[in-house]
Amino acid sequence: MSSSTVKLNSGHEMPLVGLGLWKVDGAVAPDLVYEAIKTGYRCFDGAAIYGNEKEVGRGFARAFKDGLVTRADLFIVSKLWCTFHDPAHVGPILKRQLADLQLDYLDLYYIHFPFAMAYVDPAVRYPSAWSDEFAPGTATLEATWHAMEDVVAQGLVRSIGVSNYNGQTLSDLFNYAKIRPAVLQIEHHPYLTQEPLVKFARSNGVQITAYSSFGSLSFLELDNPRAKNAVPLTEQEVIKKVAAAHEKTPAQVLLRWSTQRGVAVIPKSSNKTRLEQNLDVTGFTLSEEEIEAISGLDKGLRFNDPLDDGVAIPVFA
Amino acid sequence: MSSSTVKLNSGHEMPLVGLGLWKVDGAVAPDLVYEAIKTGYRCFDGAAIYGNEKEVGRGFARAFKDGLVTRADLFIVSKLWCTFHDPAHVGPILKRQLADLQLDYLDLYYIHFPFAMAYVDPAVRYPSAWSDEFAPGTATLEATWHAMEDVVAQGLVRSIGVSNYNGQTLSDLFNYAKIRPAVLQIEHHPYLTQEPLVKFARSNGVQITAYSSFGSLSFLELDNPRAKNAVPLTEQEVIKKVAAAHEKTPAQVLLRWSTQRGVAVIPKSSNKTRLEQNLDVTGFTLSEEEIEAISGLDKGLRFNDPLDDGVAIPVFA
Repeated sequence: MSSSTVKLNSGHEMPLVGLGLWKVDGAVAPDLVYEAIKTGYRCFDGAAIYGNEKEVGRGFARAFKDGLVTRADLFIVSKLWCTFHDPAHVGPILKRQLADLQLDYLDLYYIHFPFAMAYVDPAVRYPSAWSDEFAPGTATLEATWHAMEDVVAQGLVRSIGVSNYNGQTLSDLFNYAKIRPAVLQIEHHPYLTQEPLVKFARSNGVQITAYSSFGSLSFLELDNPRAKNAVPLTEQEVIKKVAAAHEKTPAQVLLRWSTQRGVAVIPKSSNKTRLEQNLDVTGFTLSEEEIEAISGLDKGLRFNDPLDDGVAIPVFA
Repeated sequence: MSSSTVKLNSGHEMPLVGLGLWKVDGAVAPDLVYEAIKTGYRCFDGAAIYGNEKEVGRGFARAFKDGLVTRADLFIVSKLWCTFHDPAHVGPILKRQLADLQLDYLDLYYIHFPFAMAYVDPAVRYPSAWSDEFAPGTATLEATWHAMEDVVAQGLVRSIGVSNYNGQTLSDLFNYAKIRPAVLQIEHHPYLTQEPLVKFARSNGVQITAYSSFGSLSFLELDNPRAKNAVPLTEQEVIKKVAAAHEKTPAQVLLRWSTQRGVAVIPKSSNKTRLEQNLDVTGFTLSEEEIEAISGLDKGLRFNDPLDDGVAIPVFA
């Protein structure tokens, strides 16, 4: 099984479906990555803050050693954490991430959030979550972006992108970027379609990757109050009806709703059947009416918000 | 009648109530400004894009000539329009605005919106609204801010601020500003309280000024669909009840809800009675329960959005 790809403005191809590595426990990460590659996954979406890059790297190493794939077959993604926004820290921390992953380059490297936190020496704590201790950093987004451009020039990264940027920071970025971002990764599901932002990014040549395609699902275990109060997307009548009509699962419909519109997805699963199902983005086609009906669930409901964790900066306000 | 003031981080005092000059027709502006000064207004909130600065200036000139007040008695505010974000244009356009207003300095000068539009020569069209022709500009927000700092250094402006910035651009601004913004002006009323943004700005020493304190009222004449569908704030039971309890108008309650929490307001009126009423911010005090009940109307409902006018940048997405 192989997934469709999209061509980024950097000239590189990115699969429309990747495996999300957020909340993948280190203990299971090596096997999960290995199994996912066997299942057909070619794109992996990680981050320093997920705290599992060494274990993820072991999965890649075993797959390469066993000849399942070569490095060139994979599209490996990671993200710069907020404590490393200072330009002096971008190259060094990226090299540490590459070492953890046992790789010599990333396909895509994002600025994870559009704000800097004070540097925390990895020798003291790594990664350092905002819940550990929140102090704002001093680097501007422009300075950090230029450091991202530098690691492209050094060959450590092929494409660069931003995550959780909104219309204000994205439009400002367009005016200082020497390299335009290839991808914008945002929370995107039928409860939070963010159409104006998606349209703006695309009209400027920026690919969208959706996170939390299943809505509240990932946030229930985090005790997120908005997640607990929301009707799960997989239980929405319109989703269930479309799923039944196509003999697919509601989760597959949620992913297809994105990929059919060209929005990449990075679902996580540790279940072999669901890993396969999530990768199936070409096996069925939704009608325009179905897509519109699903989009009609939009109510601006965001689940991922650093304010919930006491971050003093209102990123989405 | 005199209004309370707040001390800005620039060291200057700003009245908590000002007269908003948006949509004040040039034909009535000179008399309105003159009458407002007679009524006790000491703060005037204008902008290049309001298209009435020459007429507003005539009102000031007559008030000075008649000895109603001196320049030092007034706190006069204007804003840099999007077509002049290029640093090379900031000083020259400010000088033109000062000439129109017949002033030699402004008390406060804002960046009106956090995005640049392509320069339009004032000899061709002035001011040039985004509905005339929208093309993005090339200046970064940082470059524009440094030009704002320069006009402070030149003595043309006493305090500088930003309008319509969100958490992402405001936190980034804190990292590149040599002069911190004194004021953040945002849409703020019980349907759109923006508490996290207000709290963030204040905890960083930035004063908030609310625009559109009456909610949908100003937007009905603009045929704004969200305004037409909203219950007017002045007809909300909780507002009417509080107004009756204090023997004030619903509009006064809306203003007091802001000013009592230290948020400045800039209501517009051309009616002498209402001009007086709007200025009365010390004549009554809401209880904490009343303030909370009013804040409970919040539903993230924004009326002012450039997207409605076809601006390609999603400023609030």
